[in-house]
Amino acid sequence: MHSLILVPRFYETDAFGHINNTVVAGWFETGRATVFEVFAEPDDAKKMPLILARIEVDFVAQIYYGTNVEIRTWIDSIGNSSFHVCQEAWQSGACVARGRAVQVYFDHATQRSAPLPQDKREKLEGLALKSGQ
Amino acid sequence: MHSLILVPRFYETDAFGHINNTVVAGWFETGRATVFEVFAEPDDAKKMPLILARIEVDFVAQIYYGTNVEIRTWIDSIGNSSFHVCQEAWQSGACVARGRAVQVYFDHATQRSAPLPQDKREKLEGLALKSGQ
Amino acid sequence: MHSLILVPRFYETDAFGHINNTVVAGWFETGRATVFEVFAEPDDAKKMPLILARIEVDFVAQIYYGTNVEIRTWIDSIGNSSFHVCQEAWQSGACVARGRAVQVYFDHATQRSAPLPQDKREKLEGLALKSGQ
Amino acid sequence: MHSLILVPRFYETDAFGHINNTVVAGWFETGRATVFEVFAEPDDAKKMPLILARIEVDFVAQIYYGTNVEIRTWIDSIGNSSFHVCQEAWQSGACVARGRAVQVYFDHATQRSAPLPQDKREKLEGLALKSGQ
Repeated sequence: MHSLILVPRFYETDAFGHINNTVVAGWFETGRATVFEVFAEPDDAKKMPLILARIEVDFVAQIYYGTNVEIRTWIDSIGNSSFHVCQEAWQSGACVARGRAVQVYFDHATQRSAPLPQDKREKLEGLALKSGQ
Repeated sequence: MHSLILVPRFYETDAFGHINNTVVAGWFETGRATVFEVFAEPDDAKKMPLILARIEVDFVAQIYYGTNVEIRTWIDSIGNSSFHVCQEAWQSGACVARGRAVQVYFDHATQRSAPLPQDKREKLEGLALKSGQ
Repeated sequence: MHSLILVPRFYETDAFGHINNTVVAGWFETGRATVFEVFAEPDDAKKMPLILARIEVDFVAQIYYGTNVEIRTWIDSIGNSSFHVCQEAWQSGACVARGRAVQVYFDHATQRSAPLPQDKREKLEGLALKSGQ
Repeated sequence: MHSLILVPRFYETDAFGHINNTVVAGWFETGRATVFEVFAEPDDAKKMPLILARIEVDFVAQIYYGTNVEIRTWIDSIGNSSFHVCQEAWQSGACVARGRAVQVYFDHATQRSAPLPQDKREKLEGLALKSGQ
């Protein structure tokens, strides 16, 4: 499991007085950077052989400005050409949001999905443990 | 069905050269304004008796800067205290993203979900037709 | 003068209950699309021979969710290799924010600023009238 | 001087392949949290007796995804009812953006600016040193 600490930003609040729901989709993308690094250098995004097929987010509790948030990220299942990334946002000792992202290994040359190479699969397996909670 | 035309903004692109995936969650929230108006005046967000429990987004095709996007919004199912909002983003004649949002009718006084009042239910039913496509 | 109508989005509000100040920088970029089109096709951003050197924004009045905003954009002064874009945001008949952006014509090959070509200069002059107010 | 380390987020890039300019306005707001804390608790934004009158940002160099950014924040000048916040963004040992924000002490009851109270003024003076660079 990968852990990232984020400081909520004031512009991420909305008129309800809490962090806006749509912001969480961006936080979870930020947490998935640890997955992206398996596939490409950060300064070479154009070569990233991954596309995002689907996201799901469950909003469990209000998220507040003024208190840090931990984004937990791990790999849940690895298929032939795709894998699922599970994520949770924690604040003040409680899980406040849960997410799942379906990422597909993609060959930009053929514009099709492709089987995950063995070396990438092994690195993803290294991110597959949800532990320490 | 409600239709909203959005002009993609340059800052909504990312280093892949397309509209960033996480932006779509915000566009779909914007499309749901037609649902929010059933429950509260736009300038009185604090009184909105709705919470967002879950979102799902399927990314169907790349979304490009420079061409308008239509956000289509309709109500898919109405339960006792919650309802599902379905959404699609269309660009250049193709559906490029699909979404679903689970909204819960919420009593801020008791901090619990509550049955949808009959008048709200009827207004939601007026948004329930997916037609004209 | 170029005019663009924007619908404020709920996620653009903040805990003060109004549109967040930092959002206006994004709206003004969106209004400058009419300037960007002088220099490159929207789908070819990488070739845009412009860099943004500076922005200034004066926040004149609160901006509210629930009411459209008009972004007015015109060219204020054209120098040898740079020009100033003036902008205003209007809501409910009042100017709520004013901005200025300094754009520099930039040669990506030499990585230096360069004199504005005559055809670009003439197109910019066509955007230089602040009228009809 | 106050220092904040930010991790650039992928959705903050744009089609040029760098961090989008308008994002910097949000980063600088985030850096000013240290100033906001002088005036109100983070969970009590509605009572914050400050309004933002103006921002200026100079874009000095490209900002890249994949490398941390330091936001430096200090108070430049303190007037009767307003003060200037200076800010810089640093990446890889270079200053990549400079900003200035004009904040006004504001009495929400009278809807007017008001003289800075002595205790707030003293706390601001504690943030007034630009040092260690």
